Amino acid sequence: MADVTGKTVINNLCVIGTGLIGGSFCLALKQAGACNRITGAGRREETLQKAQQLKIIDGYETDIAAAVKDADVVFVSVPLGATQAVFIKIEAGLEQAGNHHAIITDAGSSKQQVQQIADNVFGVNASRFVAGHPIAGTENSGPGAAFAELYKNRRVILTPTNNTDEDAVKLVKALWQKTGASVEIMDAEHHDKVLAATSHLPHLLAFGLVHCLENMDDIEDIFRFAAGGFRDFTRIASSDPTMWRDICLHNQQPILEMMQRFRAELDMLYNAMASADGEKLMEVFQHAKNTRDKFIH
Amino acid sequence: MADVTGKTVINNLCVIGTGLIGGSFCLALKQAGACNRITGAGRREETLQKAQQLKIIDGYETDIAAAVKDADVVFVSVPLGATQAVFIKIEAGLEQAGNHHAIITDAGSSKQQVQQIADNVFGVNASRFVAGHPIAGTENSGPGAAFAELYKNRRVILTPTNNTDEDAVKLVKALWQKTGASVEIMDAEHHDKVLAATSHLPHLLAFGLVHCLENMDDIEDIFRFAAGGFRDFTRIASSDPTMWRDICLHNQQPILEMMQRFRAELDMLYNAMASADGEKLMEVFQHAKNTRDKFIH
Repeated sequence: MADVTGKTVINNLCVIGTGLIGGSFCLALKQAGACNRITGAGRREETLQKAQQLKIIDGYETDIAAAVKDADVVFVSVPLGATQAVFIKIEAGLEQAGNHHAIITDAGSSKQQVQQIADNVFGVNASRFVAGHPIAGTENSGPGAAFAELYKNRRVILTPTNNTDEDAVKLVKALWQKTGASVEIMDAEHHDKVLAATSHLPHLLAFGLVHCLENMDDIEDIFRFAAGGFRDFTRIASSDPTMWRDICLHNQQPILEMMQRFRAELDMLYNAMASADGEKLMEVFQHAKNTRDKFIH
Repeated sequence: MADVTGKTVINNLCVIGTGLIGGSFCLALKQAGACNRITGAGRREETLQKAQQLKIIDGYETDIAAAVKDADVVFVSVPLGATQAVFIKIEAGLEQAGNHHAIITDAGSSKQQVQQIADNVFGVNASRFVAGHPIAGTENSGPGAAFAELYKNRRVILTPTNNTDEDAVKLVKALWQKTGASVEIMDAEHHDKVLAATSHLPHLLAFGLVHCLENMDDIEDIFRFAAGGFRDFTRIASSDPTMWRDICLHNQQPILEMMQRFRAELDMLYNAMASADGEKLMEVFQHAKNTRDKFIH
């Protein structure tokens, strides 16, 4: 392991999944000179070729076991549904190569289930796994969407367990800091609850809104007369469906709880609307505006 | 009435309500040299003073009846709840002044009820009322939020009835075109349905989301870890509460229908989540993404 205080943090980085999240991580670390060599791996060779053309990675392997063998850090940025299969291949590759020092980290949007998978797959080596989640992204995906500044001034949450190696956490933290992000530590359960509220529920609402308009007779007019508000509100409905299906399935309980909460809110608003209760509507809108204006600048 | 094909469209414009919508209308027409004098009117003198300082209006009257007396066009941009009271004062002022040529138009976000109010208040003079709605706005309000480019390349919907004077429609259309907007004619019922879908329901969802998060224990963290998606999704929850209460009350039925439709969607998504039906989630997300990507560029 290189000196984490110096410019170069690690020698060999292996990135599984070279799309928006993984690709931007590579570009930012390259720009910071934080690692010497980046090897990509992933399911589709075409994507890896594109990532190499875009200088996101220095080389690639289609076989994950081969890709990880010299890695100091393995960064996993694949849809959550692929996590278990990828972890199994990483574990096999590291064992095969006798690589006992590599730190494994991920970028998945839910953390309790990922940690459970890591505990199951890595067993005694799970102490070298650091669960992470960058609070950043765009509605675009693939290597072409990656850019070095994605994480600049953004937050990254790490959710180590009592069993996680402290040096491993420090190293992953140092890498993220090199991308321009600030790193926060919290427990996985809290993370999953907060993200269900701020990210997962809004995505479901945006996908749901566009989907429910889709079958209306006036669909052409509906989109023709959509103003900036609608565009912004539904931007996240252009996100990657596979990624979001997986997030929903991997953060099921916290999301279901938020959906229940929102449904009660919607029922309350419906009743206020149906009874033309202007006072109630005004109270809700004013509260919401105050809260948003206070917290979001 | 001045030549609508020339640079100057009218002599005297009277604007009731000099906030974001009315103020931007004035600034755009001034920039285009489309009217010679703009008189403001409104409830609060402080707002009118500010509008005058910002050169949105050339002068003002706190009494609406006095403000409209020489008007060629009266532009009403007040919260929908104030529409009836304002229309009554306009009618009285025009009658008093013997002004039988003034065209009245508005910018309200719902059109069936506004037309009904106009029919009731203006009676035989209702033919000179042209119901209108610019599909533009920001989450900010007041004269300070107004800017000349708000309507540039945006759509404005006019919803004349069979009784509306054709020349009045032409004049209002010409004024809007001078702001850089493109004008479309549709019937009020269709307008209200389309707007309930693309604007009113999304606003309710955004207000509702922020309001339902407000009482959670983790509120500080929730907003601290809110990413760009949340910011965009909830931007419209910073909109003016009075304006939105009034829109809800004035477009009640179309909005209730959309809320029912959305609730069915939410129930479907909840069931898919609860049964971990990845196929169903994938189908909904993929459809929504395709639809949004197709219509919004």
